[in-house]
Amino acid sequence: MLHPPTNPTARDPLAKLIFELAKLPGIGEKTATRLAYHILKQEDGYARALSDALLQAKTLVRLCGDCFSFTDSERCVICAAPERDRQTLCVIERPADLGSIERAHAFRGLYHVLHGVLSPLDGIGPEELKISPLLRRVSESGVREVILALNPSVEGDATSLYLTKLLKPLGTRVSRLAAGIPVGGQLEFTDRQTLARALENRLEASG
Amino acid sequence: MLHPPTNPTARDPLAKLIFELAKLPGIGEKTATRLAYHILKQEDGYARALSDALLQAKTLVRLCGDCFSFTDSERCVICAAPERDRQTLCVIERPADLGSIERAHAFRGLYHVLHGVLSPLDGIGPEELKISPLLRRVSESGVREVILALNPSVEGDATSLYLTKLLKPLGTRVSRLAAGIPVGGQLEFTDRQTLARALENRLEASG
Repeated sequence: MLHPPTNPTARDPLAKLIFELAKLPGIGEKTATRLAYHILKQEDGYARALSDALLQAKTLVRLCGDCFSFTDSERCVICAAPERDRQTLCVIERPADLGSIERAHAFRGLYHVLHGVLSPLDGIGPEELKISPLLRRVSESGVREVILALNPSVEGDATSLYLTKLLKPLGTRVSRLAAGIPVGGQLEFTDRQTLARALENRLEASG
Repeated sequence: MLHPPTNPTARDPLAKLIFELAKLPGIGEKTATRLAYHILKQEDGYARALSDALLQAKTLVRLCGDCFSFTDSERCVICAAPERDRQTLCVIERPADLGSIERAHAFRGLYHVLHGVLSPLDGIGPEELKISPLLRRVSESGVREVILALNPSVEGDATSLYLTKLLKPLGTRVSRLAAGIPVGGQLEFTDRQTLARALENRLEASG
C-alpha cells in the first residue's frame, strides 16, 4: 500500500521505481524513496533524460578491444590516442581506476583493465579476469614495462605476485605502485601496515 | 575525455549517464561515477527496468485529487479506503511524511499534503502551497479535527500558526504533534530546544 520496496511485482509505479533504485550500491530503501520523490518533483524532462542516458549507456558502452576499459567505439580514446606511449602498460582492477590515474597527470602510457582481482573464495580465478589478453598484448606489442596498479589489499597483492611471475618471462619490466604515507598525511594517523610498507620501501635520500 | 560530469553536451554516453545521475540529491560526481559503472556491469535487464520504472513513475504518478499525495489513480489508496476516518485530517509537508506516519500505525484518518511550508525568503507564500484546497476540504467535508504534523522548524512552526488562525474559525479542532524527547532518547544527548519543548509540553503524571 505504501510503496513497499520489497515487492517487485507491485503494479504501483512509484513502488517499482523505489524498488529498482534500491538495487543500486549504497542506496537503501530510505534513500531510494527520497530519490524517487525528488525525481517525481522535477520537470518531465529529467526523468526522460535519465531514462535515456541509462538505456544509451547500456546499449552503446562496451569494453575497449585493447584495454577493456569502457568506451562507445571500437577502441577507447586512450588506446586510440597517437601521443600515448604504447610501450608502457598500467594494469588496473576496475575501469574507475583509470580516471583516478589520469587525474594525477603522471602517466602517459596505455591501460589494461583486469575487471577484478584473484579471489579464490569468491570463485574468481585467472580465467575470470582479462589476464590472457594482457599476456598476449605484452608479448605481441613490444611492451617494455608493465606497471601493476592494483589496490594494496591481500587479493590485490596476490594478483600482482601472480602477474609478475607470468610477465617476467616475457622479457618485460614489471613494476608496482609505491605504497607509503599519502602526501599530506601524518605519521601519527597512518595505520601500521602503511607505515611498515613505507619503511620497507624507503628510498635513499638525495642531496 | 574521461567522462567529465560537468559537460552536458558530451556525446559520450557514459559521461551523459554520470551527468544525469549527479543531478540527484546527495549524489555527487564520485558517487554518480560509481553508480554508472555499477549499472554498466549489470545484466542488460537492470538498466532497462530502471529506465522503464523512471518513465512509468513520471508518466503515471500524479497528485491525489483530495489529499495531494502521490498516486497513480484519481484518488490515492488512503483517500479511497472506506475504513479510514474521514473526520480527521493530518496536514503534512511532503508526500514522504505520509509513509513515516503510516508506519507508526497510530493514525486512521486522512492526509493533506501542503507540498512545502511558508518560507517568505524563498518566495513561498500561501498561494504556492495546497492551503486553499485544505480550507475547502475542511469546510465542505465535515472535518472535526485537523492535526498539524509539520516539521518542528521555524518555517514549520510559522506555517502551523498561520494554518491554525485560518482553520479555527471554520469550527474544527486544530492540534499539533507533540514535541519532546524521542522514545529511547537520552536527556544527556538531547539538544536544548528539544529539552525546552519537552519541559514546556510536560504532562500531568498519572498513576
